[in-house]
Amino acid sequence: MSTFGTLFRVTTYGESHCASVGAIIDGCPPGLPLEPQDVQTQLSRRRPGQSNLTTPRDEKDLVQLQSGIEHGITLGTPIGLLVKNEDQRPRDYSETDLYPRPSHADWTYLEKYGVKASSGGGRSSARETIGRVAAGAIAEKYLKQAFGVEIVAFVSSVGKIKLPSQVSPPSQVSSEDDDVVEDVLSPEFVHLLKTITREEVDKHPTRCPHPETAEKMVKRILRAKESQDSIGGTVTCVIRNVPVGLGEPVFDKLEAKLAHAMLSIPATKAFEIGSGFRGTEVPGSKHNDAFIIKEDGSFGTKTNWSGGIQGGITNGEDIYFRIGFKSPATISQAQETAQYDGTPGTLAARGRHDPCVVPRAVPIVEAMASIVILDQLLIQNARKTAAGLLPPVTTLPPTMVKPAAGKF
Amino acid sequence: MSTFGTLFRVTTYGESHCASVGAIIDGCPPGLPLEPQDVQTQLSRRRPGQSNLTTPRDEKDLVQLQSGIEHGITLGTPIGLLVKNEDQRPRDYSETDLYPRPSHADWTYLEKYGVKASSGGGRSSARETIGRVAAGAIAEKYLKQAFGVEIVAFVSSVGKIKLPSQVSPPSQVSSEDDDVVEDVLSPEFVHLLKTITREEVDKHPTRCPHPETAEKMVKRILRAKESQDSIGGTVTCVIRNVPVGLGEPVFDKLEAKLAHAMLSIPATKAFEIGSGFRGTEVPGSKHNDAFIIKEDGSFGTKTNWSGGIQGGITNGEDIYFRIGFKSPATISQAQETAQYDGTPGTLAARGRHDPCVVPRAVPIVEAMASIVILDQLLIQNARKTAAGLLPPVTTLPPTMVKPAAGKF
Amino acid sequence: MSTFGTLFRVTTYGESHCASVGAIIDGCPPGLPLEPQDVQTQLSRRRPGQSNLTTPRDEKDLVQLQSGIEHGITLGTPIGLLVKNEDQRPRDYSETDLYPRPSHADWTYLEKYGVKASSGGGRSSARETIGRVAAGAIAEKYLKQAFGVEIVAFVSSVGKIKLPSQVSPPSQVSSEDDDVVEDVLSPEFVHLLKTITREEVDKHPTRCPHPETAEKMVKRILRAKESQDSIGGTVTCVIRNVPVGLGEPVFDKLEAKLAHAMLSIPATKAFEIGSGFRGTEVPGSKHNDAFIIKEDGSFGTKTNWSGGIQGGITNGEDIYFRIGFKSPATISQAQETAQYDGTPGTLAARGRHDPCVVPRAVPIVEAMASIVILDQLLIQNARKTAAGLLPPVTTLPPTMVKPAAGKF
Amino acid sequence: MSTFGTLFRVTTYGESHCASVGAIIDGCPPGLPLEPQDVQTQLSRRRPGQSNLTTPRDEKDLVQLQSGIEHGITLGTPIGLLVKNEDQRPRDYSETDLYPRPSHADWTYLEKYGVKASSGGGRSSARETIGRVAAGAIAEKYLKQAFGVEIVAFVSSVGKIKLPSQVSPPSQVSSEDDDVVEDVLSPEFVHLLKTITREEVDKHPTRCPHPETAEKMVKRILRAKESQDSIGGTVTCVIRNVPVGLGEPVFDKLEAKLAHAMLSIPATKAFEIGSGFRGTEVPGSKHNDAFIIKEDGSFGTKTNWSGGIQGGITNGEDIYFRIGFKSPATISQAQETAQYDGTPGTLAARGRHDPCVVPRAVPIVEAMASIVILDQLLIQNARKTAAGLLPPVTTLPPTMVKPAAGKF
Repeated sequence: MSTFGTLFRVTTYGESHCASVGAIIDGCPPGLPLEPQDVQTQLSRRRPGQSNLTTPRDEKDLVQLQSGIEHGITLGTPIGLLVKNEDQRPRDYSETDLYPRPSHADWTYLEKYGVKASSGGGRSSARETIGRVAAGAIAEKYLKQAFGVEIVAFVSSVGKIKLPSQVSPPSQVSSEDDDVVEDVLSPEFVHLLKTITREEVDKHPTRCPHPETAEKMVKRILRAKESQDSIGGTVTCVIRNVPVGLGEPVFDKLEAKLAHAMLSIPATKAFEIGSGFRGTEVPGSKHNDAFIIKEDGSFGTKTNWSGGIQGGITNGEDIYFRIGFKSPATISQAQETAQYDGTPGTLAARGRHDPCVVPRAVPIVEAMASIVILDQLLIQNARKTAAGLLPPVTTLPPTMVKPAAGKF
Repeated sequence: MSTFGTLFRVTTYGESHCASVGAIIDGCPPGLPLEPQDVQTQLSRRRPGQSNLTTPRDEKDLVQLQSGIEHGITLGTPIGLLVKNEDQRPRDYSETDLYPRPSHADWTYLEKYGVKASSGGGRSSARETIGRVAAGAIAEKYLKQAFGVEIVAFVSSVGKIKLPSQVSPPSQVSSEDDDVVEDVLSPEFVHLLKTITREEVDKHPTRCPHPETAEKMVKRILRAKESQDSIGGTVTCVIRNVPVGLGEPVFDKLEAKLAHAMLSIPATKAFEIGSGFRGTEVPGSKHNDAFIIKEDGSFGTKTNWSGGIQGGITNGEDIYFRIGFKSPATISQAQETAQYDGTPGTLAARGRHDPCVVPRAVPIVEAMASIVILDQLLIQNARKTAAGLLPPVTTLPPTMVKPAAGKF
Repeated sequence: MSTFGTLFRVTTYGESHCASVGAIIDGCPPGLPLEPQDVQTQLSRRRPGQSNLTTPRDEKDLVQLQSGIEHGITLGTPIGLLVKNEDQRPRDYSETDLYPRPSHADWTYLEKYGVKASSGGGRSSARETIGRVAAGAIAEKYLKQAFGVEIVAFVSSVGKIKLPSQVSPPSQVSSEDDDVVEDVLSPEFVHLLKTITREEVDKHPTRCPHPETAEKMVKRILRAKESQDSIGGTVTCVIRNVPVGLGEPVFDKLEAKLAHAMLSIPATKAFEIGSGFRGTEVPGSKHNDAFIIKEDGSFGTKTNWSGGIQGGITNGEDIYFRIGFKSPATISQAQETAQYDGTPGTLAARGRHDPCVVPRAVPIVEAMASIVILDQLLIQNARKTAAGLLPPVTTLPPTMVKPAAGKF
Repeated sequence: MSTFGTLFRVTTYGESHCASVGAIIDGCPPGLPLEPQDVQTQLSRRRPGQSNLTTPRDEKDLVQLQSGIEHGITLGTPIGLLVKNEDQRPRDYSETDLYPRPSHADWTYLEKYGVKASSGGGRSSARETIGRVAAGAIAEKYLKQAFGVEIVAFVSSVGKIKLPSQVSPPSQVSSEDDDVVEDVLSPEFVHLLKTITREEVDKHPTRCPHPETAEKMVKRILRAKESQDSIGGTVTCVIRNVPVGLGEPVFDKLEAKLAHAMLSIPATKAFEIGSGFRGTEVPGSKHNDAFIIKEDGSFGTKTNWSGGIQGGITNGEDIYFRIGFKSPATISQAQETAQYDGTPGTLAARGRHDPCVVPRAVPIVEAMASIVILDQLLIQNARKTAAGLLPPVTTLPPTMVKPAAGKF
């Protein structure tokens, strides 16, 4: 349904042409300094009309915080917020309405609900993500203040134009050879994960942090735009400084929650964490992340093919994952298809559309990541604090209990 | 935590060396004929010791149904079940216990809980999946009886040995050319999805339905086994005859629930649905699934790049997705790593392990898919039945309401 | 937290002095005709300033529907709504702020969250119930249209002034005699439950349907008001025409869900269903509701001590229950108490307060009842529809299966 | 459904005549010493056959712990447990099976599920509570170790035989006089709440801690037994040493969760907390609990009409509440009623039944209370720990922030 999260929880409402879209964010820790600008910054990174790569619809998407904050401090109570829709009228009828848009949600919404919004796919509109981005900005502010958590997403491919530094895709040709998979975690990629900042990402409208590749992406997107077509891409996200121990076995492993969160973003088709599909080709002896004492004296792993999660639980290394976004379904190019009643015909979508969604998807990915991490942090807090109130465990064999007797 | 599902819900318990592992399955529709053999069949496909490709541990994994069934008919009440562990003693201490196994859950469990099971990763043991497989077998029986739903998973790759008929992986080399992506949905792959049966899958111990590839996979797995190493792979799953309208926007899109379910299976690192990562390279004009009237008169799509889901909701086409499993972390080969206290050293895991998990993962994937589909079906039933009790909607423009006035 | 319900779900936000209070209502059946007036009617019954018995604060509480509805028909998507707060500034500091109000939530909120709203008890404000009343009005409209369900609450006592027709309270004096408990279900009470309408309830500002008692209640409330004091009371609610089979054993028995819902209303201290506390004094031989064929040919019970629920599941008889509301904690009369820092002193609350909340509580009780019933109806729909798709059960003994073979 | 709790969560299974009844308890804090006897003690207080006041069925109800514990220490993973049913065969057919038992769940289960267990009301059997009692014993052990929480329930009435020291029931006669309600919180009652122990409760088989009243209760129960009838009663429960700040506004106020938990116990009809129904008659000026500095220097309230909860949140005072249990529906006395098909007739239940359930209900009430408190404690831990990681709040007016700057 329209609620996500257990202890930190966002519920959203709104279609394209209703009065507003908005959200209720429940479970925000009390005592957090929070200004509208904290939320607006990410909303503005998501809004349409940022560059000639996105839809020319120019919506300001100004957030109105309603509750849960006084004198710039969160109260711990639900934060209501909304963003007005600039075009609030149900859409006028058009001949294109006779057609369910191919690969869009028009037909499935009508089948599911028996009725549908005049705007077509109802809640499948990207405007729904406004509430998520707002919730994510709030979660992220907490995580940054309390733990210095850094969450940075960036565009790693557009069509076949790929960022050089990333986990390589799996082999295209069947082979029995295992020797050439070492580049999965190139030093350049490891460095990128450790250093990339949101500022660097935003230097280019594509949100690809490699200028040369970014320029190629621009051309690719503009080519799609000019041909009234669209193109897909991938977004990679890294989360640094995550506390150890987050993620709930069995069904709520952290990667499972992240996958759930990411695949709930419109137009997503794929998710991989750590070495991902490519890692399936690497033998265990190479893929295992050996433990070491690091230069700073901390216990950790030498490599990080696992992507910061082992057994569904964070191990303190960087979490990184990649999401595949399909080419947008709404294109102005004429398409041979059928009307709701089965009559064959030609549909050319009206309106102005994004030829490629990945630049605008970046803050949405960051938001969903923030929500998942904060929710899991709260759940682990509950357990850890409870266990810490018990006397030390003295009756277990030493390899079964953490030193300092359960005071973890 | 250890519960999955909203209206059809499985809760599991059990570690490797405790008395038993088991599950409570709540929300099974009443009136379903159910015998222990319905559950046992899938448990036996999951159990160790099936062939020389898996761990030689020979556990029978006989299920004991406890409740919720009388005279072979489900009562609609919770079905309790358990499988005894054959080795129920906490493990003896061994020098290997000084080492957290690399890329395993030993270290993260200890950090998360402050204590851990003697067997190491506790609930991250594959034995935990017994409860899921049992729940899935029950869900599947209902889906088959009520709708003829067919769920078939199979091994699509081991290391770099790949089934020829499948969605191709994305390009390895950056390119601005879009013309060579047509093979994403080859006719062979479409045919495979439409026809593959569980019997065909089980003809070969690898559970790869292409004999020539299967033989190569055997060699690859045995090579890993002989070198005390391990290798990963992928499992592809198809779901046929799914009712239209399943999946709950916004956060519980069907692909999001499937991704959550699949990434909760131990050792998984990646998930893609429909055209997946490869589809991100295909322009919208080619990737869109145009609507047609099919030969049997039904309304559907000409292609199925979407993988049977649009806007998070099933459209009646086949659902297909792929999951990446990493190489098992537990290998007998000596590994340079560190003890819990940071002391560097060499670990060689004792015991007998699977060199490759994908053959045994097949029924687990089918189980999780069954659970997700039945749960979503029940939720959609609730809405559909409720809407069907209202008078027909007569005041909406015709393109906003399903013919026969909301009686969907 | 701030969400209630499983498939029909309301999430609320808002304190006394923030920008607005509001709610997101998720899971409303699609295709339901819904106008703002459907919601406003109940909000207006809840708002302050309706008569001289309530607080003189005169707030209009006009609802603004934001989403989920087009052309007056629900889309099945979340309905966002809000009511602006007329006084949106954080409260000015006052010396009374040094005191936590006795029996109010000021102190516990501060302890719980570490910070608190300037208005005191934050979300414990009765303004929070606006979102519930709106959600309830929507649920009720569906229930009425689809099943003719009627939900009517009324004031059954104010202080010691009691409606003559109701379940008697239990004995005040210990006794071994069982013979005088027959009046628990007086014919007058049974008649009242069967016939009471919302129009009759609203004829008097007390919302007590017995004019003579209502007049005494007015005097009692005005006496409290004049002495700057307050008084409690009880609200009784009846639900007619409820479908059979609602309520989920074990933990979500319908009476448990109703109790949860009712005790979540501010100022409530007690709940009883059917014969309630009084029924504990009646021997089973008298208390059991024998089955009969009724005049209209339907199967039902002769008496209804059970209050329409048996084993946690509705049996089609009228559901009735009673809720106790304590005397409002906020009184203008001086109280000897202590400041937050422990300094003893005298507090006289400023502002204008309700001397008795029960007249305004009536629509809140109806709302929470509606939400519970619709939520349980949707859950039972899910199961019933699923079971109905299976072939008839023919292998069970006849007393274990419903005639017409499971087609229930 | 069959799961209760958010972070501390119990899921149960089992009917009367299946193989076993059991539970999975998820979310137990790790590192807690736990032996089977900790659970068995409470199960034995619940089991039938304890005295001549209960059913003569003599079931040992020996618990078998399956998982989640090693070397007597909880691992933080789910604790599976089961108790074998001694009579595991589906019941033989009997002529009594033609009759749904009046005020029992036979008829509603059949209507709800379309099929039902041979034993009649399926999950409405009191055997289902075994899993709850086990879960409660585990929760209670944690609460006692970590906070010294004490939870004691006792029988406060049987029929009209009442414990002298308790909250008085409300007036039976309508009156405008407010002066005689002072006895609501008699010094004897306050003393009883502060001092009652489980040992004192168990001194008498009725579990009423007032010997003289207990003897009268015995006579009353035996009178019911001899006349093949039954009688109801009430159980009162006190919870001492509860941490401040538990309970989640808005919908999950602690009293709402307790009411939900208690009304989910079979045969319950009523719940009141603190002054309850009687308190509705007391003016606010008398009913308010003024704040004071106590003898031990702690901040608290002078009286405790609130029952330890204000605004849904614990204030550190004793929590006390009362639950009404109806007279058991199953009686051996002949009853005029109707068969499933409507045929009128006479039913005399076979088997051996409890004439009064309240003595055996005592540990069930304690168990449900323990589960609620631990679950809420974990949720509050999550928030409190999260807030404690933020820098002190310095920008709020002093009356809006807890001294020591949010470090609560």
